This record gives sequence, C-alpha cells and structure tokens, in this order.
Amino acid sequence: MREEALKMHKENQGKLEVVSKVPLKDADDLSLAYSPGVAEPCTEIHKDKSTAYDYTAKGNLVAVVSDGTAVLGLGNIGPEASMPVMEGKAVLFKSFAGVDGFPICVDTTDPDKIVELVKLMQPTFGGVNLEDIAAPACFEVERKLKEICDIPVFHDDQHGTAIVAVAGLINALKIVNKKAEDVKVVVNGAGASAISVTKLVIGLGVKNIIMCDRQGSIYQERQQSMNKYKEEIARITNPNNEKVSLDEAMENADIFIGLSAGNVVSEEMVSKMAKDPIVFAMANPTPEIDPALAKKAGAKIIGTGRSDYPNQINNVLAFPGIFRGALDTRASDINEEMKIAAAKAIADLIQNEELSEEYVIPNPFDPRVAPMVAKRVAQTAMDTGVARIKVDPDEVERRTKALATIK
Amino acid sequence: MREEALKMHKENQGKLEVVSKVPLKDADDLSLAYSPGVAEPCTEIHKDKSTAYDYTAKGNLVAVVSDGTAVLGLGNIGPEASMPVMEGKAVLFKSFAGVDGFPICVDTTDPDKIVELVKLMQPTFGGVNLEDIAAPACFEVERKLKEICDIPVFHDDQHGTAIVAVAGLINALKIVNKKAEDVKVVVNGAGASAISVTKLVIGLGVKNIIMCDRQGSIYQERQQSMNKYKEEIARITNPNNEKVSLDEAMENADIFIGLSAGNVVSEEMVSKMAKDPIVFAMANPTPEIDPALAKKAGAKIIGTGRSDYPNQINNVLAFPGIFRGALDTRASDINEEMKIAAAKAIADLIQNEELSEEYVIPNPFDPRVAPMVAKRVAQTAMDTGVARIKVDPDEVERRTKALATIK
Repeated sequence: MREEALKMHKENQGKLEVVSKVPLKDADDLSLAYSPGVAEPCTEIHKDKSTAYDYTAKGNLVAVVSDGTAVLGLGNIGPEASMPVMEGKAVLFKSFAGVDGFPICVDTTDPDKIVELVKLMQPTFGGVNLEDIAAPACFEVERKLKEICDIPVFHDDQHGTAIVAVAGLINALKIVNKKAEDVKVVVNGAGASAISVTKLVIGLGVKNIIMCDRQGSIYQERQQSMNKYKEEIARITNPNNEKVSLDEAMENADIFIGLSAGNVVSEEMVSKMAKDPIVFAMANPTPEIDPALAKKAGAKIIGTGRSDYPNQINNVLAFPGIFRGALDTRASDINEEMKIAAAKAIADLIQNEELSEEYVIPNPFDPRVAPMVAKRVAQTAMDTGVARIKVDPDEVERRTKALATIK
Repeated sequence: MREEALKMHKENQGKLEVVSKVPLKDADDLSLAYSPGVAEPCTEIHKDKSTAYDYTAKGNLVAVVSDGTAVLGLGNIGPEASMPVMEGKAVLFKSFAGVDGFPICVDTTDPDKIVELVKLMQPTFGGVNLEDIAAPACFEVERKLKEICDIPVFHDDQHGTAIVAVAGLINALKIVNKKAEDVKVVVNGAGASAISVTKLVIGLGVKNIIMCDRQGSIYQERQQSMNKYKEEIARITNPNNEKVSLDEAMENADIFIGLSAGNVVSEEMVSKMAKDPIVFAMANPTPEIDPALAKKAGAKIIGTGRSDYPNQINNVLAFPGIFRGALDTRASDINEEMKIAAAKAIADLIQNEELSEEYVIPNPFDPRVAPMVAKRVAQTAMDTGVARIKVDPDEVERRTKALATIK
C-alpha cells in the first residue's frame, strides 16, 4: 500500500488539475474566451453580481480549506502535508457529485486569520468546506464564517460524520422498533464530530442523550476540563444531570455512539445496555470496541468507520450531495434542516424490506446516494429560505447523476 | 460577438473545472487516493516539505490573483466581475504551457490584505500571477510578496507586456541595424507596464531613455505629480535630465514605446524621429497613433497591441512559458534575468532571414514560443541561483510542447 500510494501521487504530481471547459485553438476562440469577448460577461456581472453564478465557475467551485492541524489520524502535520488529503477530498467532490473542489491549505492556525482569508476569497467560490482543522479553532472558524459569509460554510469533520451516523441510527431504530423520543443515547468523545452528532441526534427527537469525555458524563456545573462548547452541551443534554462514568452511563442505554479512541468500551459495558443495543464505534482505525466482541456481548446493530466491516459510517455519503444541493439552489447556508434532510435521504435509500442488522447504511459507492441527498438538500434549502433560486428537485437529482463519474 | 461571448460563458457555467488526474471507481482506488493510502504522501511531506512538489499538485499550480481594480479596459469593476478574465487567464496558462492556473478574486483593495492572503496560501501554490490590480497598489503588492514569498510572484500586466515589447525591440534593432547602447528611447505612460518596460529596456543596454507622462518628461527634482515610482524612474532614466514635452522628447528618438492612451502621437511627431524610427503604440483598443498614419509619417517598424495589425505585442507569448520554466525548476523567484531571457527567447524564434518590418514578433499561436521561453527561463533560473532543482532545459522544452494543447 505504502509504495503504491507514493508512486501514484508522484507519477501524477498530485491528483488535481485545472482544465478548460471551452476550446482554445485559434484567434477566434481567444477572442471569445479572453480579450475582447470576455469583457461582456465582466460587464454583466459588474451590473448584477448574482450573474457570477451564470457566467463564471463560481457556482460550482468549493474551497476545501485546511490549516493541517488535525489531518486524518496524523494530527498537526501542517498545511503543506495536508495537501494530499485536500486534493483527495476534491477528487471525491468531483467523482461523486460533479462539484469542483479546490484545496486551499493555509499557513496559519490563527482562527481570525483563517476567517479573514476565506471571507476575502468569497467572490471566487460558491461554497466552503472546512477540513481537518483542530478543535476548538474549528468551531470558532465555522461560527464566524457562517455569520459573515453569504455562501455556505460546512465543516465536514463535524457534520459529515454526524449526518451519516444519524442516517444509520434512523434505520437502526426501525429494526429494533424503538422511537427516537424513547431511547437513551450515550455519545463518547467531546470533539468536533461528537458535538455535531449530538446536536443532530437531538434534532431527530431524542430527549435522553448523555455525552461523556475522559472525565465521565458532561453535566451542568461540572468544573473539571470544561470549555464553552461542553458547557453548551451540558445545557442541551443530560436531562437528569447525571454525574456518572462512561461505564455507568451505558447502563440501560439503547444507543452508543463512539467518536473517541480505540478499545475504550468493554464487552461488559455493552452487555449492560438495554435490549437490542445499537453500537456505533467510529474511532479510526481501531474502533471503541471490536465489532466481533460487541456482537458477542449482545450488540444488535454495529457500525464503524471501517470499510472491512458492515455499516461503514463514511462521510463521502454526505458531503458531495449536500454541496451539490446547496450549489444548485445558490444557497447562502447549509443549515441544520438541510443536514437532517441529508441524513434522512441516506437512510431512506434502504427500503424497509432490504433493511438488516448488517445493512442500515448504504455502501459508499452506491451511485443513488449523492443524487438523492442533493435532491432533498435542494428541496430543504428552498423550504427553509436559504436558496437564492428555485429549482426542480428532480432535475437536481438527474443532474447529479449525470455529473457523477461514480456510476 | 456580445451574444456569442455571453452564450459561451453561460452554457459552460464559466470556463474552468477542477478534475482528477487519478481514477476513482471503487474502494481500491479510494484507499490509494484517499484514506488510508493518502497518509503516506502526507507523512513524507511532513518529514520534508520540499516533497510537496513531488506528491501534490502544488508544483504545477499558479494562483491568478486579482482585486478587480484594473480589469482590461473596464477599470475598477470589482472581484466578482473580474472572474471571467482570471478564468480566461487560467485557460491560457493551461492551453499554452500545461500550467494549472486557478483564479483567486479577492474582496479587498487593501494591498496589505492582499499580501497577507497570498502569503497564507503559499502552501497550495507553486507560483503567483498578479493580474489587473491597479497602480500604485500593484507595485506595493508585488514588492512585498517578492520579499516574503518563497514561490515566484509575477505581475503580468507589468512584466508580460514589457517582455514581449522588448522581444520586438531586439528584433527591430536588428532590422534597422542599430545597437541598444546607441539609441534614444521615449516611453510614453508612467503606469505599471511602462515602468516595467523601461527597466527591461535598460537591462538590454539602452543608456538614453526618457519616460513621459501627461506633464512631459520625468526628471529628477520634478515637483508636479510625482510619486516614489516616478522618482525611481527619474533616477535611472533621462541621463541629461531633459525637461521637455513628449513632442520635444520624440525629436531624434530612435524608438517610441507607447503605453498610454489613444491618438496622443501625431504624424508630425513621428516625422521628427531619427532615421528608421521604431514605433510601438500599445494603447488598447486605440493605439497612440494609427499604424497607417505612423507608416505615412516614416515609421519603419510598427507594433501594436492589436491582432488586426502586424507585430502584435501580446503577453500570451510570455507568461505561460515563463511560469512553466519557473515551476519546472521549482524557482523561488522570477527575476530580471529570467524576464530578459524570456524576451530574448521570443526574439530568437524569428531567424534573421525571416525578419521583416512586419515580422519582428512571433504570432501569439506559434507553438514554438512557450516551449522555448520555458527552456531559456529554466536555464536562467538555474544560472542565477533561484532554481531549487537542476533540470535539463531541453527536457523542459519537450515537456512544455507535450503539455500544451496549442499545437
């Protein structure tokens, strides 16, 4: 794998290129694509900025922005070394949904500088995908950008994983025949994606959800190792303000969602969960509990981040279609409703009669996913007032299918 | 033209797309291009940043940066409206020399903010092409960026035109059988490209060069409408400190270089020039003097910016090959020597026996130009110590030829 991956990257000098969609062979082509013909679209956009979506690539361009502080499992390796991941992300954008992603790897870890840079680049892009920026900087960068930008800003590490996990939970609940309102959920981990998944799970209707970190449950007035993000979580979760360890929290829990570290959950902990427990152990590369052990301990449905087990929670199921739907409606935001719509779209692709313990999440290469996500996200963008134009959702689905190279 | 240009831009939603150079069809492809295989090049670059040129697209990526303050003849139309020009520039980069240009249209006209933004984006790019930024901001942006960046920064509006004009002058001097050391040159205009062409002409060996603006000749201790750029020009030009009008300056001049405004030069002024006068009237779209009138007044060799006259001074002859040569040597700068090398490469492509009054500059679509410019620029980058790697210049020429789609 190592040699093959290095060779592939080196032979191609990276993975991305920027190509022309128009011919340029002679002076006539030049006079249309460049001087003097190019003055015409320039003049139109000068008169009405919104026509930039018509006459330029803006409406299909997404900046993939990283400072390289939290890259894969490699940690803070810097912006240069994050570039292969950002190029890879752009490849996924294009292959799954025809979105033109472009890496912007920035040589600063100062949230304010990242915010300023992205803000100044807005004229070029139709959307911004934040990637592999460490917490808590990522929260601040995203929050500020969402406030000041009139193009959608989405931190995939937080929301991509959360959306796909929630899709899996929606289907898992159908199998075990439980309702969101009735279940007890334990989230282990207090990082970016754990916080996002918690908020989305609440959006599903779950009332009883407890987040744990290394100190145990997060509750109001806890003093140790808190921050403003955990304080917000304490306010919106843990309704009985339980002061418990992870072990204790898992007693009678219906769902465990792990976004923490490998092997922190024992068979005993799973065995103490409620009937038909759902275990999403998403730590990478080693899950919170080995799926085989979880099964042995009684877990009914198991999901992981890995491709070699069933029910892979892979964010490629979400972000390409989400941005396709946002771009096609010229959305100003990707809001919570659009995220929930994406999760439901992913879940709905598995018919009830196909659902099984080992199939609650579609395969990452299922070519129906991005088009369906794009359609539902576009519809929700229009329904929630962030879309700038009206489109036919079915047409968004067809277009996504046509643009994708994953067939 | 108008309808055709708008239609072409709208049908394609702009002119650029970002595509993958590697296949992505299944989980195996995904594991090489993305997780987990992508961790290998990331780790290599983390160990040695210079390998970003091997494993990522950086080494072929040029940011085309504009604030939209001086776009074509349209003036300050803003960053959104400048996007079609920047996309067009990227199309030219790719078509002529296989360079991946990417537009970065910035929502600020503050030179310091533009400098900061470009500085922070350095990890992504192998070079920076500044475009359509108004003077004097463009000087400051370029000067500061050249100081702080370790990738080449080049303001094409200044240097592109200057390099091609100097190429034409080199050949024109051969025809009239004069030496650079002996001629008197008048440059009309004191903008960005006028200043750059003046410096390059001095680099050719010209001793007697006078720049004029609307107030007449620029000389030391002039008080009216000076700035620090004109003060520098006063120090390095006008050796006899002549205080004259443009009309007077042109008496006995061998060469007129116009980068000013239409119809500011009369037949009479040309008729007072030295024997076999050379007139490069590059104002666009209306030259400083109509070529037919200049001819009638005795001009021996005439060049303009227009494609409908002989000797078109078109910067597409310069920038694609210059960046190709700079990128292929991983150059840290594009210095004066590389610019002169580019001018000489363009000039040398016309053999002495082919030279004529109507053919001192190659056709913009001559496919030999970019490869030859790239070769000589690469050689000069190595000779002047700004290249980070050694390459075979002939191989640079071959590679440019192979990458170009202009054949």
